[in-house]
Amino acid sequence: MKFARFKKQTNGTILQGIVTDNGLQQIEGDIFSDWMHTEIIHRFEQVELLEPLTPRHVIGIGANYVGKTDELPIELPAIPVFFYKPISSVIGSGKPIVIPGEAEEVKFESELAAVIGKRARNIPEKDVTDYIFGYTVANDVTAPQFFHEAGHWTIGKSFDTFTPLGPYIETKLDPDKIRVEAYLNGDKKQDSETSLMIFSLRRMIAYLSTVMTLEPGDVILTGSPLGAEMMKDGDEIVCKIAEIGELRNPVEQG
Amino acid sequence: MKFARFKKQTNGTILQGIVTDNGLQQIEGDIFSDWMHTEIIHRFEQVELLEPLTPRHVIGIGANYVGKTDELPIELPAIPVFFYKPISSVIGSGKPIVIPGEAEEVKFESELAAVIGKRARNIPEKDVTDYIFGYTVANDVTAPQFFHEAGHWTIGKSFDTFTPLGPYIETKLDPDKIRVEAYLNGDKKQDSETSLMIFSLRRMIAYLSTVMTLEPGDVILTGSPLGAEMMKDGDEIVCKIAEIGELRNPVEQG
Repeated sequence: MKFARFKKQTNGTILQGIVTDNGLQQIEGDIFSDWMHTEIIHRFEQVELLEPLTPRHVIGIGANYVGKTDELPIELPAIPVFFYKPISSVIGSGKPIVIPGEAEEVKFESELAAVIGKRARNIPEKDVTDYIFGYTVANDVTAPQFFHEAGHWTIGKSFDTFTPLGPYIETKLDPDKIRVEAYLNGDKKQDSETSLMIFSLRRMIAYLSTVMTLEPGDVILTGSPLGAEMMKDGDEIVCKIAEIGELRNPVEQG
Repeated sequence: MKFARFKKQTNGTILQGIVTDNGLQQIEGDIFSDWMHTEIIHRFEQVELLEPLTPRHVIGIGANYVGKTDELPIELPAIPVFFYKPISSVIGSGKPIVIPGEAEEVKFESELAAVIGKRARNIPEKDVTDYIFGYTVANDVTAPQFFHEAGHWTIGKSFDTFTPLGPYIETKLDPDKIRVEAYLNGDKKQDSETSLMIFSLRRMIAYLSTVMTLEPGDVILTGSPLGAEMMKDGDEIVCKIAEIGELRNPVEQG
């Protein structure tokens, strides 16, 4: 099932729904605990899609893909490179990614993102998917010009509009068997199976749960395949996972 | 005025209040927008203090104090070292700081924390305090054993219980004219004026607002004075700003 958040074009009301052949069927309630269908269908052309949730945290992982299976390390690093992105950086599909004033380009990174659905603390790797509500596509936009020389990525990951999420949250998905793609102005730039992740989705979420209590609404970006490039004013970037949809954003100079 | 969050010991209800000579006077509503007094007073011995708010973000800054005024750099670094702490790490005064299983000690860092009260985007340094709701004391607990060798602090800052906040939010305070102290088992370990900050509170918040839209509930930790040390099982740490109060936490092995 695919969950969406959207704005009614007629009056600006923000609603939630599930994707059907005829449009978005409005739902009411909290998608993580208790919700119900309504009979109201909104046609796609009558709504503006928003990010499919307002995350509680956005947690990312660095340098998590290899190019080929035989490049996967035999022994994993003890501490993965995790980072946070602020929720102020989240936008939906269709909204512009804004390049910060002093920079001329920023990097796209197409990623599979997991949305936590249940409180998770010290969970074993084999049970991780029981705690996942669903999956969406993320673009972990990055301005490496703003990385600190001592290795801190915070500012370079934090600008407003730097975390497009969407278009939907898909609840039925096998995270081990999908492809993560990116298209810059229509040219394919990234296309990897998630089996090329160094820390698997299960492994990284199990590890995170030994550090912090994960809660519904926490969003975990699982790293970007090889092939990420810079984007500039006027470009359009599409991050795609076929089973979820296309996350499409124009790029603008700030 | 000092704002508090607390739990009634009789029935566990979570309430908000302001500090009076006779106890905590219950208030109703959103402290950032619209709230009103009630006539109900809770005596201090009838309540359990909680962290004074659930932050939207917790944003920290690294290595932000010098020891003496003449050590202040003439030119500031272009990019301050900012980092995020997850809201899952926040606890109130009185709750134990838990050392993660494999570690034997963790570091305390007593800090002045600003609570944003109004949406702030690209604000000038001179107007920063207009956007601050109030101030609290933070302990930026850190396990440097979990820093990544490439310079990323995320995991070492993220464990549950690693961000004690409190005891209150004080709305009337001159952030340039206070002392930040820490006492480990009663011995004074930190005691600096905020004038020894490299990036002043106004400067760091103005800078952050050029990167991200700050919103009510965002909490900004302004860095720790010289003198931070490690703590172990059985210790008690008190972080203190006289105008706000004492943030007191025991330390336990996990």
